[in-house]
Amino acid sequence: MSEKHSEVETDLRGGEVAVALPSRTDGGIFFTGIIHTPWRTRRDCPKRGSLDGPVCSIVVDDRWQAALTDIDGYRPIQVLDWMHHARRDLVLQTPFGKPTTGTFALHSPVRPDPIASSIVEQQGVEGTTLQVRGLDCVDGTPLLDLKPDYPMASSRD
Amino acid sequence: MSEKHSEVETDLRGGEVAVALPSRTDGGIFFTGIIHTPWRTRRDCPKRGSLDGPVCSIVVDDRWQAALTDIDGYRPIQVLDWMHHARRDLVLQTPFGKPTTGTFALHSPVRPDPIASSIVEQQGVEGTTLQVRGLDCVDGTPLLDLKPDYPMASSRD
Repeated sequence: MSEKHSEVETDLRGGEVAVALPSRTDGGIFFTGIIHTPWRTRRDCPKRGSLDGPVCSIVVDDRWQAALTDIDGYRPIQVLDWMHHARRDLVLQTPFGKPTTGTFALHSPVRPDPIASSIVEQQGVEGTTLQVRGLDCVDGTPLLDLKPDYPMASSRD
Repeated sequence: MSEKHSEVETDLRGGEVAVALPSRTDGGIFFTGIIHTPWRTRRDCPKRGSLDGPVCSIVVDDRWQAALTDIDGYRPIQVLDWMHHARRDLVLQTPFGKPTTGTFALHSPVRPDPIASSIVEQQGVEGTTLQVRGLDCVDGTPLLDLKPDYPMASSRD
């Protein structure tokens, strides 16, 4: 683990700063499904999802199938996924060709909690599979959560 | 643990269905700070955040302070927080006075991964403290992540 850590640190670009991660995590997440997209590597992914983009599949684990009940009534849906390839220890980052900036001022996958939020358009639901447009993640990305996208995304109704 | 579980299950409303949670989590999250709001219990919280609502404070842990660099240049910010009081095992829920619906078709805090996403308006940053309007969470809620809110919230720039 410490060897891997020092190996990763050699990848820092100018201006980038890594911090020591806490020795333990504070909570646990469940992967509730898997996302299938046409993009095999992060390099292949579009910079951001587009509603004109390809139809992608979100396959929810059988355990959570009933949680999809009535989701077919919503077109815009918020998807939270887990960017499982990303390192988590950078507080300052230097995106290619851009100035060094704080991680919380960036949308980079590299962040303490690598959770991506996308607004997608639902194209159909069958069994445990949801077809959507608007994703930009790599094939095989773990799903965390799905929610209807209301105008105020913070509602807890 | 199993006793606690069966105790909770007695709280099910008509139509609600709980599933057995996986025996282990799939990933770990870091609490990156703490959110201070005027609401001491979930019952006190507004149904949804409002940009006319009170100014709330997000205090980032010292470890992550540098990650706030340049966030003062953004007014709308996406906040991800962890709804630490919520049970996680319901797949069908019956909100008060409403029909039974799937968890993924609801904004209820009760969900497999109790992550809330809010769009807030930044009111100022000083040291590790960000002042914002638009939150609706209970005082003491753990912070996960902050990101500028671009028009397409799925960008990974």
